[in-house]
Amino acid sequence: MNGITRIAIVGPGRVANHLAPAFKEKGIEITGIYGRDADDTAKLARKVEAPVIQDIGKRINADLILLCVSDDSIGEISAQLSSSNKAIVAHTSGAVPMSAIPESLRRGVFYPLQSFSADKNIVWDNVPFCIEAEHDEDVNLLGSVAEKLSNKIYILSSEQRKSLHLAAVFANNFANLMFEFSEELLEKADIDRSILHPLILETANKVLMQRASESQTGPASRGDVETIRAHRELLGEDNTYRTIYDILTQEIYDRNHH
Amino acid sequence: MNGITRIAIVGPGRVANHLAPAFKEKGIEITGIYGRDADDTAKLARKVEAPVIQDIGKRINADLILLCVSDDSIGEISAQLSSSNKAIVAHTSGAVPMSAIPESLRRGVFYPLQSFSADKNIVWDNVPFCIEAEHDEDVNLLGSVAEKLSNKIYILSSEQRKSLHLAAVFANNFANLMFEFSEELLEKADIDRSILHPLILETANKVLMQRASESQTGPASRGDVETIRAHRELLGEDNTYRTIYDILTQEIYDRNHH
Repeated sequence: MNGITRIAIVGPGRVANHLAPAFKEKGIEITGIYGRDADDTAKLARKVEAPVIQDIGKRINADLILLCVSDDSIGEISAQLSSSNKAIVAHTSGAVPMSAIPESLRRGVFYPLQSFSADKNIVWDNVPFCIEAEHDEDVNLLGSVAEKLSNKIYILSSEQRKSLHLAAVFANNFANLMFEFSEELLEKADIDRSILHPLILETANKVLMQRASESQTGPASRGDVETIRAHRELLGEDNTYRTIYDILTQEIYDRNHH
Repeated sequence: MNGITRIAIVGPGRVANHLAPAFKEKGIEITGIYGRDADDTAKLARKVEAPVIQDIGKRINADLILLCVSDDSIGEISAQLSSSNKAIVAHTSGAVPMSAIPESLRRGVFYPLQSFSADKNIVWDNVPFCIEAEHDEDVNLLGSVAEKLSNKIYILSSEQRKSLHLAAVFANNFANLMFEFSEELLEKADIDRSILHPLILETANKVLMQRASESQTGPASRGDVETIRAHRELLGEDNTYRTIYDILTQEIYDRNHH
């Protein structure tokens, strides 16, 4: 194979709905869409002018079969693929090891590290693509496809990707939960939530300039006991806010007063 | 008073070092700097071409005396100010009520909601300024000064500001702690921390578009028990990462599966 020019997509969900049109735009042919939900599958197929794959067990016409299915379906659905497939079979998950795909297939991983919303377009240039494959040649092939969308390509092992995925939960899901808490506190105090937007942007931008530990400010890092006392009083007792406030405050305090 | 054109600064710390030059650039005269640390005071005074105030107890030549001191010094230092001062006396703290300043003074609050680093310039246009004053006239005067630096002026009571300050701890300090954790996990896995920067920026940018609760993704919000199990295994037992992972995962799960 000289390069990946034909991609079949398995699973017509959020990731596929972002990736498939992006590939097509870069001149890659989408040779088929497979999915359990007939409506979703037909809809994505129409969108990228591709046929619907009826039988997942037959040999699929593609250089790359991209599994855009949920984490716990990767093993099951890839086990249905015929070992007569010549295509690379790659999943798109951060959390699942490459070994979830049967050894009889030419297996790999093609993981775009981004939080996909249904209704928000992705600017691909900066999305890190994490590549893994059993064969060096396939690492290069997957890397070349990723380079059509982005200029950030990382070659990571399944073990590394597992750590990355966990790190992303902290940086994305947990940080976002902190933003949820802050919005709720503002709402209670009748303050528009947009007041915190510049600070949130600044917090994110600082991480790009220096280590997060070097950016830490606030009462816990200063050891400002009086302000912490006032915050705890404001939060009240026996609620999630307070529990989380206490544990995170203690952690920041410990890190800055050792 | 027609407007605030002369400002005296008390406390030559981080906030003063950002604010005083910004005022000067907007044509406001800095009429004096007072501080306990003689070196820091002299340095800031030179920077903004202002005299050093020797005796804080004498009447100060200014329309506004801005207290840029630590939270727990606001009461003590403002008690030293002469009640013969005609100037507005405002502190710059998010956490301290206006009432920390003696009633005998023309008191107010001038709180820029931003995380100030020593070595990073502030783009003031978007910094929210939270204004409070005992007299309506002074609210307007403080608001007009803030408008010289920024186009985001909020008039908040001491109670509201206290909630805002707590919300900012979640959105800034606690979110930043999540970024610290993620960087440490990446370091252990030998992955460059820049890999998460696009996701961190995207997370922040989403908050500007919609409520944080609407942006939540990830294994906890999906109820992906298998991935959560794998994460917990990776984290190991009896450590801060794991404790915080468990409590935040539970909270996100509860919010999305009620």
